[in-house]
Amino acid sequence: MIIVMKARASTAQVSAVVKRIESMGYRAHLSQGEETAIIGVVGDDRPIDHSQFELLDGVERTMPVLKPFKLASRDMHPADSLIPLNGNKVGAPEVVIIAGPCSVESRSQILETAHAVKEAGATALRGGAFKPRTSPYSFQGMGEEGLALLAEARQATGLPVVTEAMSPEQVPLVAKYADVIQIGARNMQNYYLLNAAGESGATVLLKRGMMSTIEELLMSAEYILAKGNTQVMLCERGIRTFEKYTRNTTDINAVPVLKQLTHLPVILDPSHSTGKWEYVSAIAKAGVAAGADGIIVEVHPNPTEALSDGAQSLKPEKFAQLVRDIRRVAEAVGRQ
Amino acid sequence: MIIVMKARASTAQVSAVVKRIESMGYRAHLSQGEETAIIGVVGDDRPIDHSQFELLDGVERTMPVLKPFKLASRDMHPADSLIPLNGNKVGAPEVVIIAGPCSVESRSQILETAHAVKEAGATALRGGAFKPRTSPYSFQGMGEEGLALLAEARQATGLPVVTEAMSPEQVPLVAKYADVIQIGARNMQNYYLLNAAGESGATVLLKRGMMSTIEELLMSAEYILAKGNTQVMLCERGIRTFEKYTRNTTDINAVPVLKQLTHLPVILDPSHSTGKWEYVSAIAKAGVAAGADGIIVEVHPNPTEALSDGAQSLKPEKFAQLVRDIRRVAEAVGRQ
Amino acid sequence: MIIVMKARASTAQVSAVVKRIESMGYRAHLSQGEETAIIGVVGDDRPIDHSQFELLDGVERTMPVLKPFKLASRDMHPADSLIPLNGNKVGAPEVVIIAGPCSVESRSQILETAHAVKEAGATALRGGAFKPRTSPYSFQGMGEEGLALLAEARQATGLPVVTEAMSPEQVPLVAKYADVIQIGARNMQNYYLLNAAGESGATVLLKRGMMSTIEELLMSAEYILAKGNTQVMLCERGIRTFEKYTRNTTDINAVPVLKQLTHLPVILDPSHSTGKWEYVSAIAKAGVAAGADGIIVEVHPNPTEALSDGAQSLKPEKFAQLVRDIRRVAEAVGRQ
Amino acid sequence: MIIVMKARASTAQVSAVVKRIESMGYRAHLSQGEETAIIGVVGDDRPIDHSQFELLDGVERTMPVLKPFKLASRDMHPADSLIPLNGNKVGAPEVVIIAGPCSVESRSQILETAHAVKEAGATALRGGAFKPRTSPYSFQGMGEEGLALLAEARQATGLPVVTEAMSPEQVPLVAKYADVIQIGARNMQNYYLLNAAGESGATVLLKRGMMSTIEELLMSAEYILAKGNTQVMLCERGIRTFEKYTRNTTDINAVPVLKQLTHLPVILDPSHSTGKWEYVSAIAKAGVAAGADGIIVEVHPNPTEALSDGAQSLKPEKFAQLVRDIRRVAEAVGRQ
Repeated sequence: MIIVMKARASTAQVSAVVKRIESMGYRAHLSQGEETAIIGVVGDDRPIDHSQFELLDGVERTMPVLKPFKLASRDMHPADSLIPLNGNKVGAPEVVIIAGPCSVESRSQILETAHAVKEAGATALRGGAFKPRTSPYSFQGMGEEGLALLAEARQATGLPVVTEAMSPEQVPLVAKYADVIQIGARNMQNYYLLNAAGESGATVLLKRGMMSTIEELLMSAEYILAKGNTQVMLCERGIRTFEKYTRNTTDINAVPVLKQLTHLPVILDPSHSTGKWEYVSAIAKAGVAAGADGIIVEVHPNPTEALSDGAQSLKPEKFAQLVRDIRRVAEAVGRQ
Repeated sequence: MIIVMKARASTAQVSAVVKRIESMGYRAHLSQGEETAIIGVVGDDRPIDHSQFELLDGVERTMPVLKPFKLASRDMHPADSLIPLNGNKVGAPEVVIIAGPCSVESRSQILETAHAVKEAGATALRGGAFKPRTSPYSFQGMGEEGLALLAEARQATGLPVVTEAMSPEQVPLVAKYADVIQIGARNMQNYYLLNAAGESGATVLLKRGMMSTIEELLMSAEYILAKGNTQVMLCERGIRTFEKYTRNTTDINAVPVLKQLTHLPVILDPSHSTGKWEYVSAIAKAGVAAGADGIIVEVHPNPTEALSDGAQSLKPEKFAQLVRDIRRVAEAVGRQ
Repeated sequence: MIIVMKARASTAQVSAVVKRIESMGYRAHLSQGEETAIIGVVGDDRPIDHSQFELLDGVERTMPVLKPFKLASRDMHPADSLIPLNGNKVGAPEVVIIAGPCSVESRSQILETAHAVKEAGATALRGGAFKPRTSPYSFQGMGEEGLALLAEARQATGLPVVTEAMSPEQVPLVAKYADVIQIGARNMQNYYLLNAAGESGATVLLKRGMMSTIEELLMSAEYILAKGNTQVMLCERGIRTFEKYTRNTTDINAVPVLKQLTHLPVILDPSHSTGKWEYVSAIAKAGVAAGADGIIVEVHPNPTEALSDGAQSLKPEKFAQLVRDIRRVAEAVGRQ
Repeated sequence: MIIVMKARASTAQVSAVVKRIESMGYRAHLSQGEETAIIGVVGDDRPIDHSQFELLDGVERTMPVLKPFKLASRDMHPADSLIPLNGNKVGAPEVVIIAGPCSVESRSQILETAHAVKEAGATALRGGAFKPRTSPYSFQGMGEEGLALLAEARQATGLPVVTEAMSPEQVPLVAKYADVIQIGARNMQNYYLLNAAGESGATVLLKRGMMSTIEELLMSAEYILAKGNTQVMLCERGIRTFEKYTRNTTDINAVPVLKQLTHLPVILDPSHSTGKWEYVSAIAKAGVAAGADGIIVEVHPNPTEALSDGAQSLKPEKFAQLVRDIRRVAEAVGRQ
């Protein structure tokens, strides 16, 4: 941390800050500028609440120097983490594609979708059994029955299953049926859920909150990693901005930024990040071109009948075309 | 819902949309404009996923007409809901003031604060025992021990206790010790927690998510109300914007907007909405002038030693001044 | 400026940065931390493009220390600047109220409004003759004819006139007719216009851009001040956020922040910052409670006939009530 | 426009709205729903200020139906507009690349850059002679001398020149030297400048404001088109959001959205939209994959000496690699 003193801070005020730093077991490094004094705190000051120092007399503001995440950081772990998924390694050159409906709605719906996405070349099947919905009056998912149908679809197609857990107690149940536990955007800072996912040891797909910074996403990953679970994939799914023409704004910058800051693989979700099926293909290709390790996309055999997210779901034939398109872009950027 | 057709939509496409509306049990009302046709859906279409219709051929977009919340709506319940708190009625002319530290840190800290805020005129005591923290390396709260200390502070001062529950299973525990269960900004869309708070029947203080719309806040309140619990207070605590000089941007507009849209009382949290103690007083007064029913504010006997949120905490003597200031503004706007 | 080196930066890289700082005439102050080295630049480095340094090998990032504004800063000019307006001093205890229609539409409209707001207690008359409109098909203002009508309204009522100039060449024309030149939100970073307003010596009301930071607002004021014109009032008029229930989000925090950072007076515009007349009164009172030096508000004798901004305009009788309400709040916070 | 009445609106209120619509020369189409009445306005109501209607008694809100832009709309002009640039057609399958420094700084700098980008395969040369800068103390550009150097660079390399005009009066001067007049992000709603650019007949590169919606960008294009100038290219250059790790957030969604809404070509500026050279290549490729018709990118022979935007400028050798990378992605998505 760096502490910038006010322009008119007195020597006594500077000394008081230095003393406080030292009393906490750190060394202070004072640098007297023309208008202001600057005090550097030497040592790992991540556990301290920096805002305490902003209250000391004569302090203008504080600035962190160390990145707040450690285990997620590429500084600590320079090599890419590779997460096994259906014989692939997520994070390796091959781009993975996770596809399926927003919600599991019926046996026939999920089986038909699973076969279709498998045939088109998907790596894994997605589908929600527990659905976080803005309205208490909306369809909330099929629950454990939906999980069982997902497991049946895996049985039938060999595709591993990615599905969401919404609370700590659901984690063991979801882990029983699924291959990858998804933590949804609204739960990115549900810390008990992160801890439970960490303790489960299961592979986790952690979605960025629509209101969360890149750094906060990495801090949430840090919760899982700190429990000893290294099988974490990050997912950019769009952020909320002033632009309302699309449901969210795809933060495509987050793809190269995350690849630089962390060793964890990065998946892009163009379905939620646009909210309209007609833009999904363009943004999926953009994600791969930007360096994403995979794509997670909503596919429904009959989007006009979907109980949720119909407008952003691709029909199976559009999805098959998308897989072919993505392959070409992947090759153009040196991926497979 | 209104469905706007594309400029070149064919008669057959219009008919198909009408037929679909009718097949779902609604009536369709067709209005042919100069460039486009518009179809109104007659009936309560809130349970339908509108986005389905955007996928039908020839449809340009859909627009909801009905407000998605019912129980929270002033249309349904024109009179102000009054929530009892320490002999006051939140929502009545008297402005309530909830004050206390961000976190319970020790017996002496919480007792000292409770006595100080009581003496200054606070209506209730706040303090966190379970703390949602961005970093797994930060202080996470004292847990049940903190709850017991809060109960002891209530015993000592008579102030009712407002404290956060972070998961559905914590609700009964928190309800045992506290008078008001707070649902924090990060958990505003933790639907299982909302359900549990609804089922508990306890008074709930529901904080707006930092990137949630006013409508989403009301939809989250709707979850609690739909469980039969009418004791809900809403809290504006600042939203996340591009402006970074303050920690958040106080959405002061939300105060009169909420008072118009809903019968539930509205509390303002100037501590989180600014993030710096020097602005807390100005924004607290602004909140009361704008029509807030109360203020929740962080007070710490020694902010420079606080384990969390020190920078935004008032010292007891500043808080006492704030209470006096708020009273004057409250009277100026016809409150007490 | 502080330069933070990467965790693995070599001694040679550190030396290269130090050498570069010195070659530009500054002194470098090196502080070796546990994980990273930090280099402080001693001297007024505001003219340098800091981003240059981020390109040097081994540099992680740079952080400015000095505030980029000088003349606008309270550090440089601790006393409040007082701007004369109709016998008042804007910035002094008396709260000023500027009122009038969005656009001048006709002689009778502006005269009727001027008399009404004068009678209700307004300090000055606002009204646009040149209107920046999103659409080329919308009413663009009456131009010089509108200016002449404003001057006539001043003649009739004694109220000074506040009106917008949209380009550098318009400044002399507007200055001829008006008492205060408004620079609108969309032109906050039209630097030639800022320079022209600065050179004119006229009193300037500078509105914050809808997506400009507080610091950028002060930098735009700095352009005017740097031309020797000290008669500048700042205006918060709402920022653009994800919340769409209101037209903009009133950044009420900006009021106490600006009062702390700068000596220039601060005016709040609750008409644009809410976009709906029913919220104008609540937010006007909030602004005064938060410490604003004045309010600028849209008033129209017949809002349903207004050529622009009808929805956010008050009728004269509502405005008269607002003036009375504001007076009570002003007194409650020690203003007049 | 659709007018939604309040739940309890009276028949008289509905009639009054209908009468008003008819008095303005439109037809009203009434649709009585279960909870509310809806009134459609039949006819081209774009010139009306919709907000007027929100003031009529019993009106809940209004919703526009017609897109506010006409000439820019693909509905009106289904075929892609092709803009000639250096023997290419922007908007045709070949992806164009515009490259050069942020600012013209010296004869040698601009000539060296022009030769380097030409050799690497650029289509046109960019470079600023008039620079909009947040601070009055920053380098403001070389002015006309810079324009002359750009013309010399064109002479030397054959590359057409893209450079910014900052005010209406500068347009003829810039048009004399340049092939394409850039309107910068801060001036996207400088309507006199848009009009002047429209009247000049010169090719215009219109950058999206950092705070502007897609629709507002198209409305600004409409100003130019309404003056009879059809030679307009749009440029997405990043928007301002809460995420501060990058300078701006590239709104990659805007690429397919604009291609759908308008016939005008779309260029992406990954330099400003990221602010850091290390992300430029990833985002440039993403832009092409998403369907952009071209890329505009900052290149500087020696970024660490650049007077502006050094941190986001590519060195010539990095740029040459980028051109090769873009070609591969362009081919993968069926472009050249």
